[in-house]
Amino acid sequence: MVTRTPLRLAITTSGVDKGLLSEDDIVEIDEHGKVVAGSGRPSAEARLHLTVARVRGAGAVLHTHSIWSTILSDTATDGGVTIEGYEMLKGLAGVQTHEHREWLPVVGNTQDWAAAVPRVEAILAERPDAHGFLIRRHGLYTWGQDLADAKRQVEILEFLFEVMGRKRGMPWQP
Amino acid sequence: MVTRTPLRLAITTSGVDKGLLSEDDIVEIDEHGKVVAGSGRPSAEARLHLTVARVRGAGAVLHTHSIWSTILSDTATDGGVTIEGYEMLKGLAGVQTHEHREWLPVVGNTQDWAAAVPRVEAILAERPDAHGFLIRRHGLYTWGQDLADAKRQVEILEFLFEVMGRKRGMPWQP
Amino acid sequence: MVTRTPLRLAITTSGVDKGLLSEDDIVEIDEHGKVVAGSGRPSAEARLHLTVARVRGAGAVLHTHSIWSTILSDTATDGGVTIEGYEMLKGLAGVQTHEHREWLPVVGNTQDWAAAVPRVEAILAERPDAHGFLIRRHGLYTWGQDLADAKRQVEILEFLFEVMGRKRGMPWQP
Amino acid sequence: MVTRTPLRLAITTSGVDKGLLSEDDIVEIDEHGKVVAGSGRPSAEARLHLTVARVRGAGAVLHTHSIWSTILSDTATDGGVTIEGYEMLKGLAGVQTHEHREWLPVVGNTQDWAAAVPRVEAILAERPDAHGFLIRRHGLYTWGQDLADAKRQVEILEFLFEVMGRKRGMPWQP
Repeated sequence: MVTRTPLRLAITTSGVDKGLLSEDDIVEIDEHGKVVAGSGRPSAEARLHLTVARVRGAGAVLHTHSIWSTILSDTATDGGVTIEGYEMLKGLAGVQTHEHREWLPVVGNTQDWAAAVPRVEAILAERPDAHGFLIRRHGLYTWGQDLADAKRQVEILEFLFEVMGRKRGMPWQP
Repeated sequence: MVTRTPLRLAITTSGVDKGLLSEDDIVEIDEHGKVVAGSGRPSAEARLHLTVARVRGAGAVLHTHSIWSTILSDTATDGGVTIEGYEMLKGLAGVQTHEHREWLPVVGNTQDWAAAVPRVEAILAERPDAHGFLIRRHGLYTWGQDLADAKRQVEILEFLFEVMGRKRGMPWQP
Repeated sequence: MVTRTPLRLAITTSGVDKGLLSEDDIVEIDEHGKVVAGSGRPSAEARLHLTVARVRGAGAVLHTHSIWSTILSDTATDGGVTIEGYEMLKGLAGVQTHEHREWLPVVGNTQDWAAAVPRVEAILAERPDAHGFLIRRHGLYTWGQDLADAKRQVEILEFLFEVMGRKRGMPWQP
Repeated sequence: MVTRTPLRLAITTSGVDKGLLSEDDIVEIDEHGKVVAGSGRPSAEARLHLTVARVRGAGAVLHTHSIWSTILSDTATDGGVTIEGYEMLKGLAGVQTHEHREWLPVVGNTQDWAAAVPRVEAILAERPDAHGFLIRRHGLYTWGQDLADAKRQVEILEFLFEVMGRKRGMPWQP
């Protein structure tokens, strides 16, 4: 969750079992990733969350490690995953028709997101219409005006990843 | 849910998170799709629900966006999906034996169902024995005398879509 | 559930939604399939349950319509499905080692089980070591001394069907 | 759960339905596998648990029979399964980067673990960096300093098995 002027972002601390998450496992950070409320080390990907919040103006940023996002992130042949022609695409912000071509960039994984931020910023700037991006063999980032928006986009994209993943290897797959 | 003389149909409003559905998210519409009770814009596919209710005399119409119905809708080579020889087919209204050949039409997707209604009506008239239809890359429509009937058909058809989808790409697939 | 001398079998009535099952949906039948307690028409496959109870001396007979049993029943090339070398086989009655070769007959489906009983009896007599059988495109029958035994065998066999089904179509599949 | 000096290990008794597990189904054994508290026969694989506790100094040892560990255990071509380059690998003890190559030995299955212990000890000694091992067509063993550590490793490895299993048979699979 994000507030602005100044930018503040609530984020889970690093290495917590998400099934046992409590209020104490969430800290508030400023635009430089410094903890301003709560205690604990913020997630190693805090820089990435801040970048998305700043560049996209998002009120909430969500990141998932799912089976199908991990698999789909590994299939990109031209630097991204294309999803096109599905009714469920209408669940993405601003999309009014299934005749939509969503292209999600796939970013290489790293353990140094501070260093990788310029690269991610460039990709997001180049693709202002992308509703999310994948990190290779890692997972999905998506966002929204608020948490409900971002959660809806997670559900939409994960659904579409599963459809596309299951279609691979099938005889009728174009 | 449908009542008749005059035709009235209770339908969810557009764009609601189905996991958070409450009574207020359901409106009553007349045969022209006009809201006669409750407030909110009815689902964009209200026309399609009304068509099924009228043409098939259904007491309940259900529509799902599932992984397997989305996948199966994309595999039709002759305008429909054939399901034949499964015991579970007996869960469809009036089917007494597994030696039944169900053919479900696949309709192209659109965002203008008012315009597409004549096409859907023609398909339903041509195939009076179809227990449902698919919209390509979108999902399933099925119906019943009441909600329990329609729900049973959803379960039956989704089960069979999953069986058929999982069999694709397997060496023994005929 | 089965009691003996005389043979009595408690069985669900026909066409009930298994998710809404209540005590009233279970009737007691005699060895000829005649209802001796409760009201309602027993399942169309009562004859098959009685046959298994009689021929195998089972105290409980279970029948499932699962995705993977439906798929596996359709893959038999020599009249049955072979499952061999899995630790989970030890969950079948009397099996002490993974070095066990289970062969489950696949019986053709029918809507006239009264007529098919002699055929099923012959298969069960020919294969006294089979812990269950499949009906093609229909599902699994298995049994046990009591309900816990039969339930354990359902879990074991369904697990193994899923393993075998998922391995099909994979490059390393022998 | 393990305590030391002397070595004591709490383990489930043999053949219990894990869905119905109660406190009485857990016994305490010494380093020779002899029951020192509680009653019942310890699991046939107690020797294997003791070996892992001793050789790896683990505080908890977990063993699963899952669909994907069963399938993956059957795919090893060089005596083990390699998992490399996934972010989720960071959930394994001491792993700090996705640029990690985990190699999990696959051990042949047996019903005589007392006799097989030297073989397993040799494999574990040869591969001090392995975070678990698979038994062919049987399942996974992994461990940790305590139960939470071991449970986290189960979740991580099962996730990765599923990713790798689902990728098999897909056209883009390298």
